[in-house]
Amino acid sequence: MVPANDLLLRALRREPVTHVPVWLMRQAGRYLPEYNVVRRKAGSFMALATSPALATEVTLQPLSRFPLDAAILFSDILTIPDAMGLGLSFAEGEGPRFAHPLRDEAAIARLAVPDLARLRYVFDAVAEIKRALHGRVPLIGFAGSPFTLAAYMIEGRGSDDGFAMVRRMAYARPDLLMHIVDVNAAAVTAYLRAQIDAGADVVMLFDTWGGLLPAQAFQRFSLEPMRRVLAGLQRAVPTIVFSKCGDSDARLAALAASGASCVGLDWTVDLARARAGIGTTVALQGNLDPAVLTADVETVVREARALVDAAGAAPGYVFNLGHGIVPQTPPDHVAALVAAVHDASRQK
Amino acid sequence: MVPANDLLLRALRREPVTHVPVWLMRQAGRYLPEYNVVRRKAGSFMALATSPALATEVTLQPLSRFPLDAAILFSDILTIPDAMGLGLSFAEGEGPRFAHPLRDEAAIARLAVPDLARLRYVFDAVAEIKRALHGRVPLIGFAGSPFTLAAYMIEGRGSDDGFAMVRRMAYARPDLLMHIVDVNAAAVTAYLRAQIDAGADVVMLFDTWGGLLPAQAFQRFSLEPMRRVLAGLQRAVPTIVFSKCGDSDARLAALAASGASCVGLDWTVDLARARAGIGTTVALQGNLDPAVLTADVETVVREARALVDAAGAAPGYVFNLGHGIVPQTPPDHVAALVAAVHDASRQK
Repeated sequence: MVPANDLLLRALRREPVTHVPVWLMRQAGRYLPEYNVVRRKAGSFMALATSPALATEVTLQPLSRFPLDAAILFSDILTIPDAMGLGLSFAEGEGPRFAHPLRDEAAIARLAVPDLARLRYVFDAVAEIKRALHGRVPLIGFAGSPFTLAAYMIEGRGSDDGFAMVRRMAYARPDLLMHIVDVNAAAVTAYLRAQIDAGADVVMLFDTWGGLLPAQAFQRFSLEPMRRVLAGLQRAVPTIVFSKCGDSDARLAALAASGASCVGLDWTVDLARARAGIGTTVALQGNLDPAVLTADVETVVREARALVDAAGAAPGYVFNLGHGIVPQTPPDHVAALVAAVHDASRQK
Repeated sequence: MVPANDLLLRALRREPVTHVPVWLMRQAGRYLPEYNVVRRKAGSFMALATSPALATEVTLQPLSRFPLDAAILFSDILTIPDAMGLGLSFAEGEGPRFAHPLRDEAAIARLAVPDLARLRYVFDAVAEIKRALHGRVPLIGFAGSPFTLAAYMIEGRGSDDGFAMVRRMAYARPDLLMHIVDVNAAAVTAYLRAQIDAGADVVMLFDTWGGLLPAQAFQRFSLEPMRRVLAGLQRAVPTIVFSKCGDSDARLAALAASGASCVGLDWTVDLARARAGIGTTVALQGNLDPAVLTADVETVVREARALVDAAGAAPGYVFNLGHGIVPQTPPDHVAALVAAVHDASRQK
C-alpha cells in the first residue's frame, strides 16, 4: 500500500516532489514532554523499547504535533547485541551499557546470529505502528551498522577516547574484529528483512562510529559489511545509510556507491559540495546542525531555508538534521522548522 | 643557532632529508613512569605547567629515552584563558575546567588580551628548555587555535555533546562568538611571538575542535582566525597547523592555504590521498592512529613502515601520531616506533 503522503518514497527514488519531505533523527524523544510521561510510566528505556504498544505510542507522538513526512520506529540500535546475550541496560543519563562485553577470544568465537524470536518485540512494534499509521506516512525501520554494533559490543558502553580499544583490535587482531562484524552483518540483514516483512517502508543503517576509523579500516570494517547488508536486502525497499564521517569526499563517494538509495550527511558536511561531488545517482538526506534547533525561531527558519537552497533543484533530497535532536530543543522550534522546509521548498 | 639535528626544520621547509624526522604529540606525558613521578611531586597539573624547572624536566624526559627529532614545550593550550582570568584547574582524571566560563554577554564584552606578564612562566620555560637542549634538536612551541580556546571558554570544560552550546552561539549570536575568537586571535599571536622570542624554533596551532563546525562556520570561526595568527607571525619560524577535521579534501586544502608551513593530519586521513590532493606546497605531518601504539611491537613496526611508504618520496614529511599518545602506551613501543620510522625512511 502506497502511503497517502509518499513524498519520502518519491524523494528516495529521486522522483520529482511538490515539496521537500522532512523527518528528524530522534523525532520521538526526550524533547517532547509527552514522551517523558510515557518513559517514566515504562520505568526504563528497555521496558519502553520492548513494549510494542508503548513503542507505537511514542513513535506517533511527533506526528500528532508536526506535519512530518515519515515515522521512524522507536527502538535502539543495540537490540541486536542484547538478543545475542550481551545484556543491554541504560543507566539514567549515562547511555547504554552491556553486562557482558566481548573481552576475550572465547566470547568472540561463541558469538552467533541471534534467534529472531528474541527480537519479536521489534517486529511486533513495526506491525502495530503500521496499523496505527493508517497509511498516513511511510514508516522507517533501522539498524546499527555491523561496525558500530561491534564498537559497543567490544567497549561495553560509549567511549570518551574514540573507541581506542576497538581501533586497537582493528590493528592487532583484525581477524577477531572481522568475525564480530561478519556475525553482525548477517544479523543486521536478517533483522532488517524481518522489519520489512513486518511492514517497514524504508530501512536505514546508522554507522555512528565508522568515521573514527582510518581510511583503509573504514573500507574494510565499516563500509564493506554495510554493502553486504544492503545487497542482502535485494532492494526490497528504499534504503538510507548514515555514517558520521565528516565532509570526506572519498567516504561520501564510497557510501554513495554502497548500494543504498540515499546517503545521510552529518552536520559538518557542505551539502551543496556533497551534491556536486556525488552527482545525482543517489538521494541525499540531511543535514541541519541539531544545535540550530536550540537557538531562536528566526535562526531556525533562516538556517532551514539556507539548507533547502543548498540542496539545489535536483530531485532526491530529504531534509533532516545532521544528528539526533537534542533534549533541550523546544518543540515549537521543530514546528517552525518543518513549516519552513515545506514552505521554502514549495516556493522553489 | 641551527640545531645539531635539523631534520625537522629541513622537512618543514620541504628540503631533502637523510631520513624522516619523528616526534609525537604528548611525547612528554602519563605513559612515562618518570613523568608520573614529577607530576605527583608537583601536586597538580597546573603546578607542573607553571614551574619552568619542572616543565623543562618533563619536556626532556622522552628525549632521554628515544632519539626523537624535536622537543615540544610541556604546557597546555588553556594557559591563555587562564591568564584572561577564567580560572583554570584540572580535576583528577576529568580534564580541564574553568571556574568562570563565558556565560553572559557582559563577561564576553569584558574579555581582553591578557597581560603577557601573566604568562611569563611559559616563556621562561621555553628559554630554560632551550638552554637545557644545548642545540640538540629544535624546540616546538604551541597554542590552541582561537576557536578551540573559545569552545572551552564558553563550555567551561570538555564536552560530551560536541560543544553544542558553542555551536548554538555560532548560529544565534555569531557576533559574540566572533568577539571571543577575535580577542583570542590577538592573544594567541602575541603569545606565540613571545615563545619565538624566548627561543621556540617552530610553533604549532592546535585546532582540536574546529572539525565540529559546519563548513561555513569552520571557515569563519576556525580557519580565518588561524590565518590571521599565522600572518601575524610573519614567517619568523616554520609553523604547523593541526585541525582534527577528518579526511575532508576541502578543509585540508584550506589549511594548506592558511599560511602554515605544515599541515598536521589526524589519524582518519588517508595520507597518500591527502598528499595527492594538496600537492607539495606545504609539508605534511602525521598521522599514525595512537591506538596502534597500544597493540604489539610487530604491529607498531608494520604500521609505521606502511605510513612512511604512504608519505611518498616528496620532501616535506614529518612523522607523528594523528592525535596524542594515550597513557596506556608501553614506552618500549615508542622506542620501536621511532626506530622503525628512521630505518624505513633511510632505506627509501
